[in-house]
Amino acid sequence: MTQNDVRVAVVGAGMMGADHISRLTHRVSGAFVSAIVEPDAARADAAAAKAPGAQTFASLEQAISADIVDAVLIATPGQFHEPVILPALEANLPILCEKPLTQEPESSRRVLEAEQKLDKPHIQVGFMRRFDREYEQLRELVTSNDAGELVMLRCVHRNPSVPDAYHQNMLITDSVVHEFDVAPWLAGSDVTSVEVKHPRRNSLAPERLKEPILVIIELANGVLVDVEMNVSIQFGYQVATEAVFEKGTARIGQPSGLERWQDGRVFQREHADFTTRFADAYDTEVQRWVRAVQNGTNVDGPNAWDGYKVALACEAGVTALNEGGIVQIPHEERPAFYA
Amino acid sequence: MTQNDVRVAVVGAGMMGADHISRLTHRVSGAFVSAIVEPDAARADAAAAKAPGAQTFASLEQAISADIVDAVLIATPGQFHEPVILPALEANLPILCEKPLTQEPESSRRVLEAEQKLDKPHIQVGFMRRFDREYEQLRELVTSNDAGELVMLRCVHRNPSVPDAYHQNMLITDSVVHEFDVAPWLAGSDVTSVEVKHPRRNSLAPERLKEPILVIIELANGVLVDVEMNVSIQFGYQVATEAVFEKGTARIGQPSGLERWQDGRVFQREHADFTTRFADAYDTEVQRWVRAVQNGTNVDGPNAWDGYKVALACEAGVTALNEGGIVQIPHEERPAFYA
Amino acid sequence: MTQNDVRVAVVGAGMMGADHISRLTHRVSGAFVSAIVEPDAARADAAAAKAPGAQTFASLEQAISADIVDAVLIATPGQFHEPVILPALEANLPILCEKPLTQEPESSRRVLEAEQKLDKPHIQVGFMRRFDREYEQLRELVTSNDAGELVMLRCVHRNPSVPDAYHQNMLITDSVVHEFDVAPWLAGSDVTSVEVKHPRRNSLAPERLKEPILVIIELANGVLVDVEMNVSIQFGYQVATEAVFEKGTARIGQPSGLERWQDGRVFQREHADFTTRFADAYDTEVQRWVRAVQNGTNVDGPNAWDGYKVALACEAGVTALNEGGIVQIPHEERPAFYA
Amino acid sequence: MTQNDVRVAVVGAGMMGADHISRLTHRVSGAFVSAIVEPDAARADAAAAKAPGAQTFASLEQAISADIVDAVLIATPGQFHEPVILPALEANLPILCEKPLTQEPESSRRVLEAEQKLDKPHIQVGFMRRFDREYEQLRELVTSNDAGELVMLRCVHRNPSVPDAYHQNMLITDSVVHEFDVAPWLAGSDVTSVEVKHPRRNSLAPERLKEPILVIIELANGVLVDVEMNVSIQFGYQVATEAVFEKGTARIGQPSGLERWQDGRVFQREHADFTTRFADAYDTEVQRWVRAVQNGTNVDGPNAWDGYKVALACEAGVTALNEGGIVQIPHEERPAFYA
Repeated sequence: MTQNDVRVAVVGAGMMGADHISRLTHRVSGAFVSAIVEPDAARADAAAAKAPGAQTFASLEQAISADIVDAVLIATPGQFHEPVILPALEANLPILCEKPLTQEPESSRRVLEAEQKLDKPHIQVGFMRRFDREYEQLRELVTSNDAGELVMLRCVHRNPSVPDAYHQNMLITDSVVHEFDVAPWLAGSDVTSVEVKHPRRNSLAPERLKEPILVIIELANGVLVDVEMNVSIQFGYQVATEAVFEKGTARIGQPSGLERWQDGRVFQREHADFTTRFADAYDTEVQRWVRAVQNGTNVDGPNAWDGYKVALACEAGVTALNEGGIVQIPHEERPAFYA
Repeated sequence: MTQNDVRVAVVGAGMMGADHISRLTHRVSGAFVSAIVEPDAARADAAAAKAPGAQTFASLEQAISADIVDAVLIATPGQFHEPVILPALEANLPILCEKPLTQEPESSRRVLEAEQKLDKPHIQVGFMRRFDREYEQLRELVTSNDAGELVMLRCVHRNPSVPDAYHQNMLITDSVVHEFDVAPWLAGSDVTSVEVKHPRRNSLAPERLKEPILVIIELANGVLVDVEMNVSIQFGYQVATEAVFEKGTARIGQPSGLERWQDGRVFQREHADFTTRFADAYDTEVQRWVRAVQNGTNVDGPNAWDGYKVALACEAGVTALNEGGIVQIPHEERPAFYA
Repeated sequence: MTQNDVRVAVVGAGMMGADHISRLTHRVSGAFVSAIVEPDAARADAAAAKAPGAQTFASLEQAISADIVDAVLIATPGQFHEPVILPALEANLPILCEKPLTQEPESSRRVLEAEQKLDKPHIQVGFMRRFDREYEQLRELVTSNDAGELVMLRCVHRNPSVPDAYHQNMLITDSVVHEFDVAPWLAGSDVTSVEVKHPRRNSLAPERLKEPILVIIELANGVLVDVEMNVSIQFGYQVATEAVFEKGTARIGQPSGLERWQDGRVFQREHADFTTRFADAYDTEVQRWVRAVQNGTNVDGPNAWDGYKVALACEAGVTALNEGGIVQIPHEERPAFYA
Repeated sequence: MTQNDVRVAVVGAGMMGADHISRLTHRVSGAFVSAIVEPDAARADAAAAKAPGAQTFASLEQAISADIVDAVLIATPGQFHEPVILPALEANLPILCEKPLTQEPESSRRVLEAEQKLDKPHIQVGFMRRFDREYEQLRELVTSNDAGELVMLRCVHRNPSVPDAYHQNMLITDSVVHEFDVAPWLAGSDVTSVEVKHPRRNSLAPERLKEPILVIIELANGVLVDVEMNVSIQFGYQVATEAVFEKGTARIGQPSGLERWQDGRVFQREHADFTTRFADAYDTEVQRWVRAVQNGTNVDGPNAWDGYKVALACEAGVTALNEGGIVQIPHEERPAFYA
């Protein structure tokens, strides 16, 4: 419809895809949704109705053939990422892929191989925390060394509840996965081992889940990370981190907004889910990706190598969750291509 | 450049205009800057260099003649608003006019008259606080009656310093002006009187200024508003309101973001000026205005009548500042046109 | 019972008296209750049962005659203060008199006259806010000039409800009375005028009360004080002050203590009444008074002259409440006796 | 000097002893210091000069022989506790013993044996956190089950620096020791194992120390406790706990007090050491112990069995610190004597 705007094919029109379609249509400058790729025709049509100018397709290949796609945003479940990424790479299209890159390291390696045949990285992975203003401030503080060296990261990830499809390993692959990306990004150092501790089980958790868990992550530079992971804590949604430095500490993810005094209390509303907690981060992520696509750099955020490292950490985390003990992750050199 | 996007002429390329050009270019969906109207050619060119697709003009009339303008965003100093608004109205163009609508009630009345010749309101006034998330939450609380009726609003507006051109009356016309818009909007009731109290003078204020001042505003429904207005308080920029209800209170504008412990203290950064404090509010304001232009409603926020009421309150406020005493504002019925 | 401990006669065994008896018996070092003076015999006996070693009397004169009193703590209603103070002064006994000193300036003047016949001040008035740690910190900040000169004090005094006996003038004489003591103490300057503004009435207030009120107090050094006074606000008990300086601000009386996340909110308990809000302040006040009695200085806190000044301000405040306008308080030089 | 007041022998007139002497003399009701037991005569005299009525002794036995001791407060270094406790028990005197009870479980067992020859417990151990208002509130919350069952305790103990005599094992025996008492008290369950993790070392720590450490403690009821222990973090002194429940969380030890806005920041003072952080807790502890002595219950707080359990946990903690791995603590039934 436009000459300058990036024509984005959104793959997957579920909750996440619909959210991105709304974002690209209403809040992001320089792009619009030209194609919605979704095998479920009813869902595709419902999404298209809210995105003026978008056509629907059953497969990404069809959308690409129609010659109306400049870039691809992948919002399908993780197991379907690889089959969408590969044709997009073949068509030389920039990709914003919702986390995780892929679910298995093996699959991620195939993606890396395909991408490295191109002239430069084409894939950005949707770890949106890096675009949250407070995470950015925390990283600036680490980089500035203003409080001395970083020593520990103490992380909290609490969900009020999870859907029926959420199974035990997803504590790692769906939830702690964010910390596997953001902790190394904050600390500037790779994950070297993962361990899982089991506190008393929350009796309000679904029967199939044994949680909360406390995940202990070591980074190559010695920074120790612990992550309290709760998915049935009811009160609300909370993602917070306390960074311990040599000369002080810093805390992000604390309550904010309107304060009320009523009924013997002073209170603030806590988030109910990630949609409000990270609303701005998602907008910033997609806006910056669109700019990167426009200026030809393609990626302005975590790339496929970052996604691969997270897949390795998740694999170790799942082992630690199921078998106990400290699970090591062998070091792999970051290829120059992803420097 | 596009078929669907709103082509906006930005009038005035000073600090505020440049900020809106950047916003329309990089962060707002559905619009782009097609024309920059600025008599200072160097300033105009500098602004245009950052807005791909924008042409420069010395007058709004020229831009309109070029047939590339769907809507007008006015960011000139207040004394130049009327001469830009009138031709824009004549061309039947939607307008987003930075506050104030105009500086004198007399001038505002001429604008209202011209606008009422059209089929519907075309002017939105840039009181951006209404788009701040916390102000919105506070208004929702008032409307919900969840804490009983609103009784008082206790407002704080503190600036670290002001430019050389800032003179005594601007305490009212440039600063308290925001409260004259937002307090009635929050309380659902017009301003009926204004009074100014003088605390001890801040010795750090420029010699020409006698401040801080405490402004006491009465609304028609009995809600009492007091505004502490400081413009030389050095520590930072702070805009906050405490609402007193029958059964409780609520507070907005409190510190948020990363918390640090260092050097014997725990601290958070306070804002340094309005650009960060209201960054999101400006983005939301302009994005919603663009949508209103696209859907033909033109206005989604304070309209010209609201702007006129503020001009009346400012006139009374200046009298109160200079002559003392309680200055009444006669009631005027809101015309059906602005309902 | 002891040789060193101060033998205190507590006059009045109502709620306040009983509280002081408990304090002297259980939490204060260097003193014990030797006499309880209370005309209501049942109430006297109940109080004595909780104070080992205390005898009961119908009048202070009887207790003094029994030769078991070193000092007097007066906790009767204000209208009965003068008839207790005068015999105690005649017996040369140090006095801690609950606020107010007396209700009328005329009565206070008689007390001052009687006291000045002695060798030094004997009366301390129970304005306990001066002993609250945060008020002390705020005063240290004023004195240090670390934030520049003090410019304004913005005070909040909110009660959930008041007893049936509380009538309109008590908004001033029972509640704002504290600000009449503590604001001059903080600012180092006397009250020169009082004015009362009426916001919308709280419909939940008892029919006999027209409140909240906003009291505007001017001090001799130009510091402007405003006091929001609420006595039917339901949510809890809150006493807070924001001090505005030339280079910054400071706030006391903010929530503290255990923070909870539950039911979609993060919250802290707010105080329900003054007993918890000022528990430590009362303990400190009485402990320091006991030390002053032991070391012969008699007074370590607000003296009778301070109490007289507050009576003058209350008189002006009641006039302002009932008749409107700005009510001036003539300057009176502090006698050397009370320097 | 008095007939009713408890005559306390304070053993040890170092910093801690001097602090208790001041407390008993100036802030605690119902007791006074009758004897100061301190081999260093100069230090003894200096202490006695501030405690009217106190005599000095080189040994506790001498003070007891002088027949002026009703109770004993032990404030010597831990290695000297047993030789003072045993003669005090023999004299049937109530004891408040600063933490730890004794340094070795073996020594604690001898103390327990001696105590159980008496009619009832005589020893209270000085774990003052139990008397901190916020810890009490947290325990009430656990007991109430209002937020569901307790699942985790996440503890922080940060010191700005430590004296030269502080060696590596004291991370456990002098610092984490508090958590070994208070975590079981909060959770209502004994410690079953201890493990120590090593984050990156703080380069600002004294060369002899490898810290911070992260201590992971399991309780018999499954509650998992982690303790971040820092002793060179410079910024200030901080002791905080976040309790994770099934339906919510609670946090204690957060900043409070006067808030200041200055120099681009909003800040509060953080504690510099334990003397201010736990000032009220110490006063409450000693006041309640004095009442317990007066009413013949002797103990109102952690007893010798609690102290013994802490000694066991410290022993395991030191092993974990030096040898790594998870160190188990065998269960021992609490004797009926200490129920």
